[in-house]
Amino acid sequence: MFEGPIQRLIDELSRLPGVGRKSAQRLAFHLLNVEEVDANRLAKAITDMREQIGTCSRCYNVTAAPECMICRDPRRDSNIVCVVERAQDIAVIERTQEFSGRYHVLGGSLSPIDGVGPGQLRIEELRRRIPDESIEELIIATNPTIEGDTTAMYLARELKPLGVLVTRLASGLPVGGDKDYDDEKTLGRALTGRSEL
Amino acid sequence: MFEGPIQRLIDELSRLPGVGRKSAQRLAFHLLNVEEVDANRLAKAITDMREQIGTCSRCYNVTAAPECMICRDPRRDSNIVCVVERAQDIAVIERTQEFSGRYHVLGGSLSPIDGVGPGQLRIEELRRRIPDESIEELIIATNPTIEGDTTAMYLARELKPLGVLVTRLASGLPVGGDKDYDDEKTLGRALTGRSEL
Repeated sequence: MFEGPIQRLIDELSRLPGVGRKSAQRLAFHLLNVEEVDANRLAKAITDMREQIGTCSRCYNVTAAPECMICRDPRRDSNIVCVVERAQDIAVIERTQEFSGRYHVLGGSLSPIDGVGPGQLRIEELRRRIPDESIEELIIATNPTIEGDTTAMYLARELKPLGVLVTRLASGLPVGGDKDYDDEKTLGRALTGRSEL
Repeated sequence: MFEGPIQRLIDELSRLPGVGRKSAQRLAFHLLNVEEVDANRLAKAITDMREQIGTCSRCYNVTAAPECMICRDPRRDSNIVCVVERAQDIAVIERTQEFSGRYHVLGGSLSPIDGVGPGQLRIEELRRRIPDESIEELIIATNPTIEGDTTAMYLARELKPLGVLVTRLASGLPVGGDKDYDDEKTLGRALTGRSEL
């Protein structure tokens, strides 16, 4: 439909998650209509990121240095570690400003159906960190899904014998949400996890 | 929040139309997790497009050649020209497979409020094409907005004296739409534009 170089960009943009054919076309024409320096700055941001970003040697967060910003920060409490599925989950927890420990990125969650067993996740790396960094508590922040719950239970069973406290993020009603719109599973979790006032 | 190279990519992606902070973050992590060759192919598609795509010397469509694919195609009828606001409008009309003439890209629509007068649009270029290419009909396909309508009326007044037929795309109910969901303006247009059965 479009000449080669435009069609190739539309095709590449369509491969991005959540970008359909129409949005890809709109984005391509946007990149054609902005100043050339602006379009090229986006291109360079992509290649720069791929060139410069690697994995933290301690927690497997993404980083441009051997260790990530959080592991390098001496003000962070090294005895408490929040265990997440993916590096991007860290940003969500950081935004709460309620956590001052370090992290551990598992790289996913246990899912036999997708062929993800304990060997595919960074569980051994986590086990080694417990004595090395005198970790006292692991907060399991995997997603509240079957896979995330299974992973949390597996980690608790495997790592509690090492003398570490293993906790799980609370599940319940979203703050500011309307109970009418919550699903039964969330409501069920909120009931079993109720606390005394 | 994120280390430099990731944050810079998120910032660049956030500048795209329709991409908020959360989508930008999701896209950046997607580009971090795919194969490096795939991420870099997107970057190259952007710079390649900017390097190779220019404007058709006849109709101002986008093209990698001096003249666009449509102007170069000898099977296209050169006596009938569809006048559009932007180059991307051409793709929409081409997809109908109902038009076999050529195009003319105005570069926008008349909008005194935005300081767009006839001098800012490619109207003189269109006027010159009428005798040069023996154009017999101009189909004005500007948007059914106040600006698009004003532009259509202006073009009709200016160009009809040159002996060319000036027509306008029909406005009315969308095919397959439900009348309950149409706005009064579209319904009004459908009424005034009604045809005998």
